[in-house]
Amino acid sequence: MAFDWIDEQAELRRRAGLVRTLRPRPADSPLLDLASNDYLGLARHPEVVEGAVRAARTWGGGATGSRLVTGTTALHAELERELAAFCGFESALVLSSGYAANLAAVTALAPHGTLVVSDAGNHASLIDGCRLARGTVQVAAHADPDAVRKALRTHDGPAVAVSDTVFSVDGDAAPLAALAGACRERGAGLVVDDAHGLGVLGDGGRGAAQAAGLAGADDVVVTVTLSKSLGSQGGAVLGPAKVIDHLVNAARTFIFDTGLAPAAAGAALAALGLLRREPERAVRARAVARELHARLTAAGLEAVRPDAAVVSVRAPSPEGAVRWAADCRAAGLTVGCFRPPSVPDGISRLRLTARADLSAEQIERAVRVIGETRP
Amino acid sequence: MAFDWIDEQAELRRRAGLVRTLRPRPADSPLLDLASNDYLGLARHPEVVEGAVRAARTWGGGATGSRLVTGTTALHAELERELAAFCGFESALVLSSGYAANLAAVTALAPHGTLVVSDAGNHASLIDGCRLARGTVQVAAHADPDAVRKALRTHDGPAVAVSDTVFSVDGDAAPLAALAGACRERGAGLVVDDAHGLGVLGDGGRGAAQAAGLAGADDVVVTVTLSKSLGSQGGAVLGPAKVIDHLVNAARTFIFDTGLAPAAAGAALAALGLLRREPERAVRARAVARELHARLTAAGLEAVRPDAAVVSVRAPSPEGAVRWAADCRAAGLTVGCFRPPSVPDGISRLRLTARADLSAEQIERAVRVIGETRP
Ligand SMILES: Cc1ncc(COP(=O)(O)O)c(C=O)c1O
Ligand SMILES: Cc1ncc(COP(=O)(O)O)c(C=O)c1O
Repeated sequence: MAFDWIDEQAELRRRAGLVRTLRPRPADSPLLDLASNDYLGLARHPEVVEGAVRAARTWGGGATGSRLVTGTTALHAELERELAAFCGFESALVLSSGYAANLAAVTALAPHGTLVVSDAGNHASLIDGCRLARGTVQVAAHADPDAVRKALRTHDGPAVAVSDTVFSVDGDAAPLAALAGACRERGAGLVVDDAHGLGVLGDGGRGAAQAAGLAGADDVVVTVTLSKSLGSQGGAVLGPAKVIDHLVNAARTFIFDTGLAPAAAGAALAALGLLRREPERAVRARAVARELHARLTAAGLEAVRPDAAVVSVRAPSPEGAVRWAADCRAAGLTVGCFRPPSVPDGISRLRLTARADLSAEQIERAVRVIGETRP
Repeated sequence: MAFDWIDEQAELRRRAGLVRTLRPRPADSPLLDLASNDYLGLARHPEVVEGAVRAARTWGGGATGSRLVTGTTALHAELERELAAFCGFESALVLSSGYAANLAAVTALAPHGTLVVSDAGNHASLIDGCRLARGTVQVAAHADPDAVRKALRTHDGPAVAVSDTVFSVDGDAAPLAALAGACRERGAGLVVDDAHGLGVLGDGGRGAAQAAGLAGADDVVVTVTLSKSLGSQGGAVLGPAKVIDHLVNAARTFIFDTGLAPAAAGAALAALGLLRREPERAVRARAVARELHARLTAAGLEAVRPDAAVVSVRAPSPEGAVRWAADCRAAGLTVGCFRPPSVPDGISRLRLTARADLSAEQIERAVRVIGETRP
């Protein structure tokens, strides 16, 4: 029978204790959330919610078509202007998700004949972009500009290096300035995914490229998501106008996808406005991350020093990580849990996010629960 | 310099008259819309808008995380139950777009060792799914169950056939029952993309699989989008519970993507409720399409007989199609325009969508304008 092979895989997963299940949450959970990517605590901010409400009332439930047909509203254009201006790039293009933005950027900028050098720790969406791209892919060692340099030297035509700015598993930052240096030696482009940097890194949350002095450079393209610091959904590509024009004409996940829902665009636009007015939110997210790390380390746990708002804590085993996260939940705390096959190195972790709106009491409680439930 | 190669491509595009540009639209356009995919006219229906508004107020601007972490709300679970029940399948899984749903279904159901037989006219998202899948892909002639049968015979292990139910370019329907027959002879699965069928085909808009007697079959998987008939954004995969569980564990565009924004889920849920109460909307969309086709044909134009709500009209050339669409717009009518490289066969077309809420006067006006502007 069709799909019989699924039973076998399901059984293997069950035996390995690796079955994933969905756990619908209520609107007002009593749990303390250290698992979401709502880094600035904006997803339920009244202004963000009203941004969504106003947009839905003005424009309707959906964009109604591809961005190239009926799916570009004046709201999409406004969001693109604001994102570009905020992050310091010439142009921006909004897509339906950060995943789609990464597929668009990598495939459109790595056509046949291009070398793509991809960091070994990159996010699934960048990896899928590399696999869909017609260019040739070389995987470079994690966060290693010399490895990128070496890979770029093997190729003579157009090339791009592709990297997360902040890696989603360990929360460590890419050496952006050094990467840009390696690329420039060879006239290669640099495409970086700032999903976990926007709103957290750079002046007032302007992102990792701005922090590294790369905002607006004509050889740098940045992708962002609207679904983390901006509390909404969607993604965007930022870069030189000619690169954005090229994506409009060549990126399949832009051309053949319905435009972002107006409510999501409206929410993101409101969040961006808040971030402009309250730049201290970005500072606070970083401070919370450093404090979480310091306290967890003081409690004898093995945590990676955070470069942004993600704090990663090592677990002894996949099962240990799953049990640890479940015990945290039972004690009132939601934490993320990364384990194979979601981690390239096979090391299981708890993944904590340092929301800017966590109070001192909440931070203390989180550290206490994590320490007490340690496997 | 990095990205210099883009200039050359832009120049080629310019010379060929193939430059695509974005045209932001106002909230209340004076143009008559025959270009959007809002087939049932629900995107701005007050109940759909209020569905979005209520969801944003209750849940916030975004889902805040992957569906596996914090991104599954009770609203997502409700939408999944309702979609599955409405379309007659055991389970459903909601993703951030129809594009993501197609990538998820094809990649998760075509692992290494699987044969994927893909219709030559399939949508870009199914094609990208095939390219990302680890299985072996064979492209079969368009809408040809015998070609699928022949391809399936070349392979002994697990296999799936993949097809749009209604093809987006010409609006023609796939021979679903015959395709299912060809698959069943070999124990192969059938994955169909009902983006243009949901809300239009089947009893009360239950979709092409229901119309073909395939709803709920244990060897059939359907993907849908929430962005067309349901007037929102997002996508879903419908099928046996075990297939959906498998996607939860294996589909990268599900696992590594933020959950659909609550407002989009709320809008789609409201649209589904409307469709249940007003099944005549589906009937009307089909009737409008047939009427458009009849009148265009009577006016001497070459239009494809519509199987759903898309009406395709042949244009003499790519430039002719572009000029035709522009002249329609100047005369107050928005129509879609398909031309290379978006059409696999190189034939340019105007693409009209038969919205259920078009009045007799609007249909007449549309046909008159299209006839008068004919190149
Ligand atoms: C580094 C990174 N890039 C891209 C994405 C995808 O963004 P989105 O969820 O908006 O599709 C994510 C997570 O979701 C991510 O962690
Ligand atoms: C046949 C088909 N499948 C999938 C999609 C993608 O759906 P979405 O726009 O919701 O991502 C589209 C168009 O957008 C389509 O026409």
